[in-house]
Amino acid sequence: MYSNIRIVLINTSHPGNIGAAARAMKTMCLDSLWLVDPHGYPSAEATARASGADDLLANARVCSGLDKAIADCHLVIGASARLRSIPCPAFGPRDCGIRVWQESESGRVAVVFGREQSGLSNQELDRCHHLVHVPANPEYPSLNLAAAVQLIAYEIHMAALSAKGTGQLVAQDRRLPADGAEMERLYGHLEQTLIELDFLNPDNPRQLMRRLRRLFNRAQPDANEVNILRGILGAAQRKRDPNRFP
Amino acid sequence: MYSNIRIVLINTSHPGNIGAAARAMKTMCLDSLWLVDPHGYPSAEATARASGADDLLANARVCSGLDKAIADCHLVIGASARLRSIPCPAFGPRDCGIRVWQESESGRVAVVFGREQSGLSNQELDRCHHLVHVPANPEYPSLNLAAAVQLIAYEIHMAALSAKGTGQLVAQDRRLPADGAEMERLYGHLEQTLIELDFLNPDNPRQLMRRLRRLFNRAQPDANEVNILRGILGAAQRKRDPNRFP
Repeated sequence: MYSNIRIVLINTSHPGNIGAAARAMKTMCLDSLWLVDPHGYPSAEATARASGADDLLANARVCSGLDKAIADCHLVIGASARLRSIPCPAFGPRDCGIRVWQESESGRVAVVFGREQSGLSNQELDRCHHLVHVPANPEYPSLNLAAAVQLIAYEIHMAALSAKGTGQLVAQDRRLPADGAEMERLYGHLEQTLIELDFLNPDNPRQLMRRLRRLFNRAQPDANEVNILRGILGAAQRKRDPNRFP
Repeated sequence: MYSNIRIVLINTSHPGNIGAAARAMKTMCLDSLWLVDPHGYPSAEATARASGADDLLANARVCSGLDKAIADCHLVIGASARLRSIPCPAFGPRDCGIRVWQESESGRVAVVFGREQSGLSNQELDRCHHLVHVPANPEYPSLNLAAAVQLIAYEIHMAALSAKGTGQLVAQDRRLPADGAEMERLYGHLEQTLIELDFLNPDNPRQLMRRLRRLFNRAQPDANEVNILRGILGAAQRKRDPNRFP
């Protein structure tokens, strides 16, 4: 878990959003949740929406006023849905994730989310070093609070994975594609079978084999798949001439 | 709005998740929602959670079985939380967003999300060309369904913004892959031919068709290539029984 990074939710109206935010955080390895003057919290609704992340709720710090929640933080980033009259540097989520991760290696970082309806007050923005702004549909930029937490937490996690050198992230395709010699044997077998089936005229082959090569090369079959394909070709040859392989 | 890209939710248990997914989509300029066999839908809970995105619910297509929802799609990507025994290429969300956006410039794309508890069935995975996997906390990878939709939709939107801003994302592959209905006809024809060739035992099919689906789905054949493959299958059937198509 990234213990130097905290999520601060200010004046949240719907306890369900607090639970959903806790769940979003935990999926992305964040576990430090601060709640500033929440409404109707604790609540069964929050616990239900937290699903298996209720440990984050149990450990959440509840306080009054933003200052207490960020007193020991070295970097404070405010999530903002709208442009502000007093300019403040604003990151996109990706740059935000990188910056938060980098700073968290040496100090404590807070990402602060405001009220569902009205966001952060000007006084609260004054406490932020930077803003983060999620680029959204200009006709409907209305991200749910927990959804916004999910996106920011995801970008922090992606930055952490990237920094750890596991930027590929996903167990990519572990198959080993067949080598060139195996593929040539497949194409030779395919061509011979197509001639026997009278599908390919060796005197006028046109572009057929080229097209089939493009197709199978795109799929990059592994050795096992090449064996299956050649098994099918062999079956077609045998059916044509049952005495061929007695 | 990105009208060539649809989100397909299969067998969703909680109507609230459908509403939250609609909201997540609309914030990221997606408006095409398909619901396969949803539970307890329509519902007031879905509408409440959709907030201002209830127009997506009003226009959502409800159908039975995944095939109907993807019949006219050229690329189908399945969201998967776990690794699979039969390998299928898996993107991270970022690469998924780029790929989906690129493909949507020429054809229809579906991103398919499975059940809250159990995800996609093997039969549903057989319909997918690729998987997308969100890298999450290995101790708690339990993303909420709407949160997963939010992340994927966000990465699609980021890819779209990036493509529009820099022009760096150029679709390289101009072929239009065959749609889901054409692919099903190909697989039906392939299966029938393999039975006639005694290569596939219908009483003990094992994983053969699944492996062949993974292979051909990876290649994303276009309509012309599907015709060539079906021409070969037809030739094999006729050779087996010369009187079949006199």
